[in-house]
Amino acid sequence: MTAQEKLLLQLGRGRHIAVGLDSDVKKIPQHLLTEKDPVLKFNEIIIENTQDFAASYKLNLAFYEKDGAQGLELLQKTMEYIPEDVLIIGDAKRGDIGNTSTMYAQSVFDHFKFDAVTLHPYMGFDSVEPFLEYKDKLSFMLALTSNPGSKDFEKLELKNGRCLFQEVINSVKAWNTKDNCGIVFGATNERELQDNISSFDRLFVLLPGIGAQGGSLEGVVKAFKESNKDRFLINVSRALIYKDLSPHFGLAAKEEILSLNNKISEIWNK
Amino acid sequence: MTAQEKLLLQLGRGRHIAVGLDSDVKKIPQHLLTEKDPVLKFNEIIIENTQDFAASYKLNLAFYEKDGAQGLELLQKTMEYIPEDVLIIGDAKRGDIGNTSTMYAQSVFDHFKFDAVTLHPYMGFDSVEPFLEYKDKLSFMLALTSNPGSKDFEKLELKNGRCLFQEVINSVKAWNTKDNCGIVFGATNERELQDNISSFDRLFVLLPGIGAQGGSLEGVVKAFKESNKDRFLINVSRALIYKDLSPHFGLAAKEEILSLNNKISEIWNK
Repeated sequence: MTAQEKLLLQLGRGRHIAVGLDSDVKKIPQHLLTEKDPVLKFNEIIIENTQDFAASYKLNLAFYEKDGAQGLELLQKTMEYIPEDVLIIGDAKRGDIGNTSTMYAQSVFDHFKFDAVTLHPYMGFDSVEPFLEYKDKLSFMLALTSNPGSKDFEKLELKNGRCLFQEVINSVKAWNTKDNCGIVFGATNERELQDNISSFDRLFVLLPGIGAQGGSLEGVVKAFKESNKDRFLINVSRALIYKDLSPHFGLAAKEEILSLNNKISEIWNK
Repeated sequence: MTAQEKLLLQLGRGRHIAVGLDSDVKKIPQHLLTEKDPVLKFNEIIIENTQDFAASYKLNLAFYEKDGAQGLELLQKTMEYIPEDVLIIGDAKRGDIGNTSTMYAQSVFDHFKFDAVTLHPYMGFDSVEPFLEYKDKLSFMLALTSNPGSKDFEKLELKNGRCLFQEVINSVKAWNTKDNCGIVFGATNERELQDNISSFDRLFVLLPGIGAQGGSLEGVVKAFKESNKDRFLINVSRALIYKDLSPHFGLAAKEEILSLNNKISEIWNK
């Protein structure tokens, strides 16, 4: 299945949650520390309990790279637990000159076999082009992020009247000749989402910032509903995977994603 | 030794070349393919021949990540060949929300023990702050890059009259309270270098783009000389490591870096 097919299948089922596997040995339930590989066991149980309700899993590469080669092995083993028809996003935030981005694209798409990746747009078209050449994969370019620093550059106004993030969105739309582009748009920027959503066209949208970062699920879903678009994925990481730190954490994660799915469906069908 | 001490030591010796270990098994001398680990052998011979003349080695993480865990092991083994007093830059171009950047900083500085890193500034201050907290390490933020895509966003004019890359440089100067910040400025942008160098203050400057990308060594060195600044590193990757593909490639790399050092010294002392 192509990345687009997987994502459209899940979106068609009304699933919009991307479970962020920002798994940190210091934060997982402590009873798992007796396991041979505690984080792998944690990921396995989270996936087992959420796989029938998640649209996607987002693996944040930083959380695996920090342990070097061993961490990357953990990443690969984790990916084996994820069902074939669920989109796997490599949250890598890469972007470099062409010949280097070619290597990064080989890394995320050929070696690790992610379905999708997140990319920094700062260096312009040729820095993301090698990823976009993979027509059956999805590339989410950072537009407006969920963190406080989004005001430093992303929200700066350009001479042409647009903000930088709006210029990025315009460019990504122009690069989207293979229907394989998306943007990252922080859910913490609710007003900007409302103001800009009509310009997203067919771009897939990955929205982090719900939960620990304070973005509103209701605000996001309403904005997409009112704009009659359903190409959106809401990432929830810490608020879901660490919902409960007891031996029942898997069940708690399952209840949390079911509750999120229900909330989305309620808002959508209101 | 701190990263600053290493770099200032090398700059004080008149050394300004960062050898880019963009090592690719498809491009290294073919006689090495009989080795157990061809790329490691290649890196070892390049380092052996250039270590007394290089200011720094820049390891491009993409070239190692593309082989996953095995690639990261190669990266670590390569770093062991580099002398203690030569700066090692992890060309990682990372940048994410705070808690994720903390993980990336742990990866590059604590796990891999790089002296310096390259970072994407797009997401603003809190996305680079975890790196800047390492006061004895150096962080080079992308300002104006050497690739064609630098025109897409970096060179856009803001409403305040500055270009985006100039705004980034201004911000990096404000963030440089620990004298541990640098910028990446592509040597292919000679006119912009001349026009902006006076604004660099004490920032360390990493300049890629000489050699395969077409930037001029003379232009760069002259600009720094005329501005009376010596905090610059010129990266040379492909034009040095692949100068010769015969069994004498190590010697050829040595001759190339000696020739580059001589050219720099001639221009500097003219």
